[in-house]
Amino acid sequence: MNTAERITSNFNDQAFMKTLGAQLLSIKPGEVKIACPFDEKLTQQNGFFHAGVLTSVVDSACGYAALSMMPADADVLSIEFKMNLLRPAKTSQIIAIGQVIKSGKTITVCEGTVMDEKEENILCKMMATMFCVQSGK
Amino acid sequence: MNTAERITSNFNDQAFMKTLGAQLLSIKPGEVKIACPFDEKLTQQNGFFHAGVLTSVVDSACGYAALSMMPADADVLSIEFKMNLLRPAKTSQIIAIGQVIKSGKTITVCEGTVMDEKEENILCKMMATMFCVQSGK
Amino acid sequence: MNTAERITSNFNDQAFMKTLGAQLLSIKPGEVKIACPFDEKLTQQNGFFHAGVLTSVVDSACGYAALSMMPADADVLSIEFKMNLLRPAKTSQIIAIGQVIKSGKTITVCEGTVMDEKEENILCKMMATMFCVQSGK
Amino acid sequence: MNTAERITSNFNDQAFMKTLGAQLLSIKPGEVKIACPFDEKLTQQNGFFHAGVLTSVVDSACGYAALSMMPADADVLSIEFKMNLLRPAKTSQIIAIGQVIKSGKTITVCEGTVMDEKEENILCKMMATMFCVQSGK
Repeated sequence: MNTAERITSNFNDQAFMKTLGAQLLSIKPGEVKIACPFDEKLTQQNGFFHAGVLTSVVDSACGYAALSMMPADADVLSIEFKMNLLRPAKTSQIIAIGQVIKSGKTITVCEGTVMDEKEENILCKMMATMFCVQSGK
Repeated sequence: MNTAERITSNFNDQAFMKTLGAQLLSIKPGEVKIACPFDEKLTQQNGFFHAGVLTSVVDSACGYAALSMMPADADVLSIEFKMNLLRPAKTSQIIAIGQVIKSGKTITVCEGTVMDEKEENILCKMMATMFCVQSGK
Repeated sequence: MNTAERITSNFNDQAFMKTLGAQLLSIKPGEVKIACPFDEKLTQQNGFFHAGVLTSVVDSACGYAALSMMPADADVLSIEFKMNLLRPAKTSQIIAIGQVIKSGKTITVCEGTVMDEKEENILCKMMATMFCVQSGK
Repeated sequence: MNTAERITSNFNDQAFMKTLGAQLLSIKPGEVKIACPFDEKLTQQNGFFHAGVLTSVVDSACGYAALSMMPADADVLSIEFKMNLLRPAKTSQIIAIGQVIKSGKTITVCEGTVMDEKEENILCKMMATMFCVQSGK
């Protein structure tokens, strides 16, 4: 499997991504985009996207961005992340972008951004630390 | 409405908490617990709870812990949070505990902990900053 | 006093910036740069810049970037920040850049970057939340 | 060298700790305390301890707490940390406490707390991720 196939397969194995209705938009080396259309079942008390939905989707985008730079037999784990929520997520669809800012053998640091449907406004920013798990270790 | 009623009502307005199957366990001044039983639809690629589920639930627990210390007409918003994921979340139920560590007029800082079903192992730790929104402002 | 004068005056009031040998490089609306030349007294056990020095300087750069967007009578406080340390800080001078990514009435979110002397390599990244303190309040 | 000697030796190699006037108070497995007396040269614009000083000292306390659980030939690096600043640091001395909350082969997660001189008020909280560097690797 090539990188895009590995990431697509891993994404499809995440039942929670299906539960959210999230979809892989694009996979490039060091950058992955995931979209998630609005659904009433994803809302917080004011009817907007729940911060947890934004976090779930952008954490996945960051994880796959990291995985896109790792060896073919590696898996990726989130060690930690930090989110700043900049605006209420009033939009018909969120676009989550994960980008590698430093790729290492064991540790990869990613920046995540969640945009509104038109990719005009930043809804939140993530900084995440990813761990490379080598199979056979 | 008293504090517990306000929090319960706000919780019930969060459609995403229903989607996750999360349940309010207890409300004390400065401390709120929320449980979420395992469901296949909440999993990541290895079949454990997705980090996004843990985040969603413990962010809510922290938000309500903060709200429990705020004036009766206030609402709460997460400004930011940071999560450290300590162990794979292999458990039949997660217990998320939000605790206020510093309550202020505008800003409240909370610590969140997600435990396994027996409340023996810490699965992850959150530090969160909450913002008090006064109605009529 | 205009914005640049206010920031310069505030910077000069920070005795710790003098202790570090830090210098204001540039002030633009929403972006402030501070440099700090290498000095043996600023090192950690391997002889590189201590992470605390990087943090001190980039926290100040973020704070002043936030202040540059605030009303003339406001002061700024760091509520919280998160740092990812990407590389050992082996350089003759660090350049810290603070940039506002979302400016609000009460809360301003900034991104901080510390570069090496040539501004080629990113040494660390900060995400910071700043609070606007209005005098007379 | 035993653990306490290794940590003391490493601490003494950090020139920046001397610049701050920081002193190792105690070393226990998984917990290290460092004090730093007030000095005018460590202040921010209001005359209190600069957030960067608090960060430097508690990052070191967390790093040594992590190192206290690592093999004898290991060194420790901070990957990332997050600080919440809870109160102005008006005190004659800060006491920084680093505690391991999850110790792993490669990654150790620590909680840091900075208290005032009487260890009554929490001035700030850190959550930090530490990396174990094995010599010979």
